[in-house]
Amino acid sequence: MAARPGVTLAEIAAEAGVSISTMSKVLNGRADVAASTRARLEEHLNRHGYTRRGAAQRAETIELVFHELEATWSMEVIEGVEDVAQQAGLSVVLTVSGDRHSPAADWIDGVLRRRPLGVVLVFSDLATAHRAKLRSRGVPFAIVDPAGDPAPDVPSVGSANWSGGLAATRHLIELGHRRIAAITGPEDMMCSLARVDGYRSAMNAASLPIDPDWIRFGDFHPTGGESHARELLTGPERPTAIFAGSDLQALGVIAAATAHGLSVPRDLSVVGYDDIALARWLSPQLTTVHQPLRRMGEEAARLIIRLAAGESVDTLRMDLATHLVVRGSTAPPA
Amino acid sequence: MAARPGVTLAEIAAEAGVSISTMSKVLNGRADVAASTRARLEEHLNRHGYTRRGAAQRAETIELVFHELEATWSMEVIEGVEDVAQQAGLSVVLTVSGDRHSPAADWIDGVLRRRPLGVVLVFSDLATAHRAKLRSRGVPFAIVDPAGDPAPDVPSVGSANWSGGLAATRHLIELGHRRIAAITGPEDMMCSLARVDGYRSAMNAASLPIDPDWIRFGDFHPTGGESHARELLTGPERPTAIFAGSDLQALGVIAAATAHGLSVPRDLSVVGYDDIALARWLSPQLTTVHQPLRRMGEEAARLIIRLAAGESVDTLRMDLATHLVVRGSTAPPA
Repeated sequence: MAARPGVTLAEIAAEAGVSISTMSKVLNGRADVAASTRARLEEHLNRHGYTRRGAAQRAETIELVFHELEATWSMEVIEGVEDVAQQAGLSVVLTVSGDRHSPAADWIDGVLRRRPLGVVLVFSDLATAHRAKLRSRGVPFAIVDPAGDPAPDVPSVGSANWSGGLAATRHLIELGHRRIAAITGPEDMMCSLARVDGYRSAMNAASLPIDPDWIRFGDFHPTGGESHARELLTGPERPTAIFAGSDLQALGVIAAATAHGLSVPRDLSVVGYDDIALARWLSPQLTTVHQPLRRMGEEAARLIIRLAAGESVDTLRMDLATHLVVRGSTAPPA
Repeated sequence: MAARPGVTLAEIAAEAGVSISTMSKVLNGRADVAASTRARLEEHLNRHGYTRRGAAQRAETIELVFHELEATWSMEVIEGVEDVAQQAGLSVVLTVSGDRHSPAADWIDGVLRRRPLGVVLVFSDLATAHRAKLRSRGVPFAIVDPAGDPAPDVPSVGSANWSGGLAATRHLIELGHRRIAAITGPEDMMCSLARVDGYRSAMNAASLPIDPDWIRFGDFHPTGGESHARELLTGPERPTAIFAGSDLQALGVIAAATAHGLSVPRDLSVVGYDDIALARWLSPQLTTVHQPLRRMGEEAARLIIRLAAGESVDTLRMDLATHLVVRGSTAPPA
């Protein structure tokens, strides 16, 4: 499968009987070519597989950037972006780069070379220099679930993390729990802080004391949930309920409880966060806070498309609602 | 954020003091331009964001096509492709299109316009006309886990499905089970047929009878596992073990068993297939057949890159090994 020999623009122009400058104009999507001429010349270009570039080419892709791909979580965001992109006739370029603070330094060069319609970043923020580069080239960007605290002019789509933490904890309190622990995500992520603050507010509102040891910063993965739960469950006055901060951490908490001879929800109630597709297929089915991950991806993609089209956008930052889904992993304390 | 005004090739050529035909040659990666001239002109092109096309541009992306995104399963394939692509300096364009027989008809136009280095299809086969189009343009393709029975000259990366089905069933037989049912995937997918044939061979080798009702074709999703298990578990002579054909179906089987008042593995042993990342975090931890999904994605991407580079490839079709992972969802019959 050898590469097809390249045909020059000059050759195509000659074949079409126009000047190379006219051909260039068509190629660059310039307006000063008659529509009928443009159509005819584009046919020549297409026949040779010579696609348009410049403004016109930029409309082909949306860049979607993760700092890590996490099966259950990332996929729903990808599906949302992919869906909106497809409806708009765009392709999605998927990149895994950097950490949760920003994509790796060389990432920006690739993006500028690929000239996407726009960029959707999950978690990561953007370095100021990268923002400037994208802006100077008219490439809009949006952040899904910003990890840090982006500047007010950075478009972002998040969800109501504080309310989610509040609802999860309030549910446990209403079931009669008094000793409730919380394992949230990493300490340098806004969503972690907001969820645990929601937990605090619910506990305070119910005048329940919080043992400082009951607030843990995990990693959003099963291992983090497991190791913290192992410690929490060995104390003399162990919590009767744990707000796990993510569904994956909830799996780790349940694994630790099982290993400790505790049955969920009989001996320990567990609330997750995210409502991943598998949550209702677990045994017990997971009580969790539904985070509209798919819709967050959709909204970010829509925002990019509107910004790229030059539409005025009233709200650059939005938080979608979360809600509690009560299933089988929570019950009144024994 | 308006689009940057396009600059024509003629303007860049004038700026660089060369003819537009020389500029075209550089743009098309032709060999008849001195290296120093090429370097200088590419600098001009880059400064204006005017990237190369033709053979050179084709090296920017790998197209990865799914007919559906399934969280736990698809992500591992994506990670494998993304990893190899990144190492090769390529981006991954992710597309969801068509059904498990082939991508939608309009998909091929997008691919030809984007001119990727190559195409990796998951499950789907390619229509003969699409194959011809890709071949005529020198775009190699490979199929991960082909659903149908592709022609011998179609590169593909699968896994040892028959051996996996055999190993899963043999494990159950060795535990002492005699009444073993199998829920495999859709009847029109090769991997489903191979897995269930492995089951049959293990049963036959142990001289165990197979009730025709014990072989079911599911959908690889939890719902398929649940509905078939519900029927299987209500019979008078219910099976004591079920080979679930996918981890998601195993979750459905366990949900049906729980709803039926049966405990896994005490009352029913369940073997999954895939070994998704969460399998070890389920309660009970899932006994399953490990399918190297990530490596299948990696190998397919590597194959594409080698074919695109014109390397000779000895083996166009390969099946990676599978192996049984024994965890907590299987036990001797009560």
